[in-house]
Amino acid sequence: MRVGIINVTGYAGSELVRILFRHPEVEIVSVTGRSAAGKQLPEVLPHLWQIDLPITRTIEEPVDVVFSALPSGASAEALAPLVDKGIKAIDIAADFRLRDPAVFHRAYNIEHPAPHLLGTAIYGLPEIHREAIKATKLVANPGCFPEAALLALAPAVRAGLVADDIIIDAKSGISGAGRGGQSTNIMDQYSEANENVVAYGLNGHGHQPEIAQEIADLREASSAKVTFIPHRVPMTRGILATCYAPLIDESMGKQAVWDMYQDFYRDEPFVRVTPEPPQTKHTLGSNFCLVYPTVDLQAGRLIVVSCLDNLVKGAAGQAVQNMNLMCGLPEEMALESLALYP
Amino acid sequence: MRVGIINVTGYAGSELVRILFRHPEVEIVSVTGRSAAGKQLPEVLPHLWQIDLPITRTIEEPVDVVFSALPSGASAEALAPLVDKGIKAIDIAADFRLRDPAVFHRAYNIEHPAPHLLGTAIYGLPEIHREAIKATKLVANPGCFPEAALLALAPAVRAGLVADDIIIDAKSGISGAGRGGQSTNIMDQYSEANENVVAYGLNGHGHQPEIAQEIADLREASSAKVTFIPHRVPMTRGILATCYAPLIDESMGKQAVWDMYQDFYRDEPFVRVTPEPPQTKHTLGSNFCLVYPTVDLQAGRLIVVSCLDNLVKGAAGQAVQNMNLMCGLPEEMALESLALYP
Amino acid sequence: MRVGIINVTGYAGSELVRILFRHPEVEIVSVTGRSAAGKQLPEVLPHLWQIDLPITRTIEEPVDVVFSALPSGASAEALAPLVDKGIKAIDIAADFRLRDPAVFHRAYNIEHPAPHLLGTAIYGLPEIHREAIKATKLVANPGCFPEAALLALAPAVRAGLVADDIIIDAKSGISGAGRGGQSTNIMDQYSEANENVVAYGLNGHGHQPEIAQEIADLREASSAKVTFIPHRVPMTRGILATCYAPLIDESMGKQAVWDMYQDFYRDEPFVRVTPEPPQTKHTLGSNFCLVYPTVDLQAGRLIVVSCLDNLVKGAAGQAVQNMNLMCGLPEEMALESLALYP
Amino acid sequence: MRVGIINVTGYAGSELVRILFRHPEVEIVSVTGRSAAGKQLPEVLPHLWQIDLPITRTIEEPVDVVFSALPSGASAEALAPLVDKGIKAIDIAADFRLRDPAVFHRAYNIEHPAPHLLGTAIYGLPEIHREAIKATKLVANPGCFPEAALLALAPAVRAGLVADDIIIDAKSGISGAGRGGQSTNIMDQYSEANENVVAYGLNGHGHQPEIAQEIADLREASSAKVTFIPHRVPMTRGILATCYAPLIDESMGKQAVWDMYQDFYRDEPFVRVTPEPPQTKHTLGSNFCLVYPTVDLQAGRLIVVSCLDNLVKGAAGQAVQNMNLMCGLPEEMALESLALYP
Repeated sequence: MRVGIINVTGYAGSELVRILFRHPEVEIVSVTGRSAAGKQLPEVLPHLWQIDLPITRTIEEPVDVVFSALPSGASAEALAPLVDKGIKAIDIAADFRLRDPAVFHRAYNIEHPAPHLLGTAIYGLPEIHREAIKATKLVANPGCFPEAALLALAPAVRAGLVADDIIIDAKSGISGAGRGGQSTNIMDQYSEANENVVAYGLNGHGHQPEIAQEIADLREASSAKVTFIPHRVPMTRGILATCYAPLIDESMGKQAVWDMYQDFYRDEPFVRVTPEPPQTKHTLGSNFCLVYPTVDLQAGRLIVVSCLDNLVKGAAGQAVQNMNLMCGLPEEMALESLALYP
Repeated sequence: MRVGIINVTGYAGSELVRILFRHPEVEIVSVTGRSAAGKQLPEVLPHLWQIDLPITRTIEEPVDVVFSALPSGASAEALAPLVDKGIKAIDIAADFRLRDPAVFHRAYNIEHPAPHLLGTAIYGLPEIHREAIKATKLVANPGCFPEAALLALAPAVRAGLVADDIIIDAKSGISGAGRGGQSTNIMDQYSEANENVVAYGLNGHGHQPEIAQEIADLREASSAKVTFIPHRVPMTRGILATCYAPLIDESMGKQAVWDMYQDFYRDEPFVRVTPEPPQTKHTLGSNFCLVYPTVDLQAGRLIVVSCLDNLVKGAAGQAVQNMNLMCGLPEEMALESLALYP
Repeated sequence: MRVGIINVTGYAGSELVRILFRHPEVEIVSVTGRSAAGKQLPEVLPHLWQIDLPITRTIEEPVDVVFSALPSGASAEALAPLVDKGIKAIDIAADFRLRDPAVFHRAYNIEHPAPHLLGTAIYGLPEIHREAIKATKLVANPGCFPEAALLALAPAVRAGLVADDIIIDAKSGISGAGRGGQSTNIMDQYSEANENVVAYGLNGHGHQPEIAQEIADLREASSAKVTFIPHRVPMTRGILATCYAPLIDESMGKQAVWDMYQDFYRDEPFVRVTPEPPQTKHTLGSNFCLVYPTVDLQAGRLIVVSCLDNLVKGAAGQAVQNMNLMCGLPEEMALESLALYP
Repeated sequence: MRVGIINVTGYAGSELVRILFRHPEVEIVSVTGRSAAGKQLPEVLPHLWQIDLPITRTIEEPVDVVFSALPSGASAEALAPLVDKGIKAIDIAADFRLRDPAVFHRAYNIEHPAPHLLGTAIYGLPEIHREAIKATKLVANPGCFPEAALLALAPAVRAGLVADDIIIDAKSGISGAGRGGQSTNIMDQYSEANENVVAYGLNGHGHQPEIAQEIADLREASSAKVTFIPHRVPMTRGILATCYAPLIDESMGKQAVWDMYQDFYRDEPFVRVTPEPPQTKHTLGSNFCLVYPTVDLQAGRLIVVSCLDNLVKGAAGQAVQNMNLMCGLPEEMALESLALYP
């Protein structure tokens, strides 16, 4: 299978190369960049010296599958002509995640550049939409925060365990902000990010409507009350989401909730319900999401902690999992690595 | 003023030395340790080489004020005879924070060693109990998490802005776990703590009843519904608390809430209501607590983010502030340092 | 191939599991521990939940190959009976690295527990001793610092480029100190190790005689003048060695040196001579050693910077590379992963 | 005393504010910036909210003393007119450190903008040039690396203990690279700098001729053979320099060297000869330099390890110490703070 990667030079793009390099059915034939176009890949990313491909402005080779790791807006624009040609596409940007272009506009403050494709895109969370992913040619890879939050909440929300009043307090490593260049936020600089925790997105974050859309679907409702507050923590990779929701049946115990989650995810290759609260470091470099549900008995509240590597299960790994599904390959192919610990 | 420090070798104890070394009215005359007794202070803590005091088993000099940084249980036991003699005491441990010995027993799983003193101890949060602190001889220094959470919530709770349904999602640096020796948690080791975030205390944390007691007081109620979930984040110092509570008047706007907080803390020397979400690093090494209140308008929810240095405003600095109040000194003496940034 | 791992619970041991789990020719059949004996592996190391083996006191299954990750002294003791039975053994400890038991005694302050095996052990640096490794049944896996230093220096020393006056200034992540338990050095605690650099081993470090022995061999001399100073830097993994030696021919230029190194390592699967100074992060989780030779023209000095992941090429990955050689398997099997970056 | 700070928004500039805010004899009356001109200081640096000064393009108030924290070249240009007016000036940039404008040109690749002042500037290392600093109106504050290296080497070099063949292997936190904006090096980004060590300046670093100039002076020679290799380590603050030089008398023992150093620095307020190898964290936020000399007996080599906080003793603190000397104030004023540990 011939694969192209649009905007390979960001963190999600280079992580795709790392993973696909080991994929027995894939050959990376074309990689693109913007400011780095004209260079060889290892000049920009020396850890990828074995993959000595030229970085071009656009996909210049015939491909069977294309990934885009461009920023939102630019991504749909670059993908649309390829999708229209029938090439299988996985968009790691946000462009095809929100079904409603008006919601997209509010969230990202740009007009949607390819609204005609919104109807065909499938939200690429296999644990919820596996069969639809297998059947589509355009997958919207979930955002890293929604990935963690939805895997934490799906079992409880679908089972109707909790009221429509969810809080997601998420903690992310700094790589979630992307690989800056001239546009780098001062907060991404080592000296400012180190030994520092800060909440952000307090006036709204693009991942909130994405989470709300999927939670509403799981509830079979038209909307969902979801507060989502992300935080930056001083580490490179990893997201931990702590989710809170009122239990409808306040007498429900910890074990009952845990068992229900275990049943829900029993056959999933990449979600593990853990016996103890999980650690982000237990997912480093791997495609696993760890989920730990419990109950605050005094407050009658469900609490679910989930974690994953934001660049793997939260981006490039999830994208490869989706590609495997779309192409009829074993879902776990190239994604079997265990976490790097410590 | 002659001052003694019980258990100087932990992080709170050595931070007391750092701060008091610059206090113009204080002479540190006696410091104690357990395993380090018999050594000189700089042998154990080389950064304190100017303070070449012997570490003894017990306070061996007459003192006017004594601080205890012992673990809970041991602290009350060591302080009780000194308090009984009339020496002013500030307990950095948890022993005098909970008024009800039964609650103490449930939280810390030990019998209270000096219940006769519970009635005289004042909870050492000057922003709430300043006058009582001035008048007492025994102060229970707040826990680091309660300090951050209560300063975040006090204005809203006292004004009756929010319903009795509070969630506190707190993020703490690793020094909050104390200076281990043989008893060190494997999780405190650098290689395990680095690049890692984990939730803990999911089956109950000793700071929850402390927060609930003070929130209930502020509400003039007998109890309070408070969910408190702490997280470890890979940094040495700093706590950031993100607090969530339903607004009773859902139409209340961000500015109105901010103004109300600003009024509440206008004259406080060590609490600042910030115009932007605060960063833990903006408090490093300083005695300041930064508070940022806002509103999730869609969900009708108050959100308050607060942060502080867990070893200063969350421990030793708060203790010195309490000492200043108890001794009729200017409240800010020795605590004026700005944060170390970056 | 049936494989056993002695002392699986340390960092080198658990890293062996991570790597061997992906090895197509290996089945891990027995893992041992000391304090953790009786537990299942994932209870101690949750990131290895797929490998649900019991931790036993000794190797309890027939094995073809055994790795030992015990501390020095204990390792030879545990391995000796297995080696005597003819089982192929790779010792990750220091026990078989020094040919002279008197030097071993001075370096580690213990009597060698199995001096009869010293003659058969091969120093497991394939770039120097590949053919001997293929032929032996007992490999002494190099120390992490010697691995980095020797790969940096071998081309120049063997070619007689430099005088007998070498300085190795090495910087190591904290995981190099091992996974502590009760015996943990306070310096390994996160709060003490973070934001801290310190030199150690200034009165002698066990890796110095190991480096000197191999350098002397490369020089075909009986001894070598080598100063080795390791430093702890606040990261989990990674070693960077900066090596200094006087050039015999002071007119030798940078390019000539670089070309000579490139020739030396041209066919090596796991050593790369880099065009720019290398970064430890470019080796994270991979089995590669990056080497960058240059010249201080004013001082007539060769400077070589090398780096690797101390737990992979510096320990478990090197051990698997040695196993592959000893067993006639492709040298790179299970070791092809690219570095995790960022 | 009225003080102005040119380019307050970098790390050295903001650190000056932090220190001078506590100085009893100083009032900061004017601060300048470039891109931040027009804003209030706390808008750019929120941790300095108590110092609500406008950031102007140039010093707009009469001042007695001026500090410049501009980049090299720009600094001399901005300072020259003020120095010409007789205002006392301390240049934190490199512009007045090298006496020979030709050397300056080679090191910084710019023409010196104010060569007429080179003769009057004193190199601001009080431990070597105290009396000259007291008498001058223009001080060239040392670079952070030279500060650490020269304090490590001065006693041995001046006493003629070592041969003319010095290696300085230095390790610096990331803040040493300055506070980037659009010009930020990708290597300063958290995700690239974290868990990473890299050597740089291998083709020459501007601090090498500065060190060589001062070492030559100490030797009373016209030149000095000095190899200087800096490394970036993942921490915010701190420099540790490990210095190597051949002992002329190879029989000199560790204690004799240590005693000699102790004599040399006995009366220095900010240099401490430590009994054990020092840690950068023992200097965090303080103006102390810790020095530990020892001997590699086998190699006949002096090894000196020194460390300091690159933004305090390596920049702003050293500048205030120089100001105190120039103005006849107690040398330690405003610099008494102990290190923040942990």
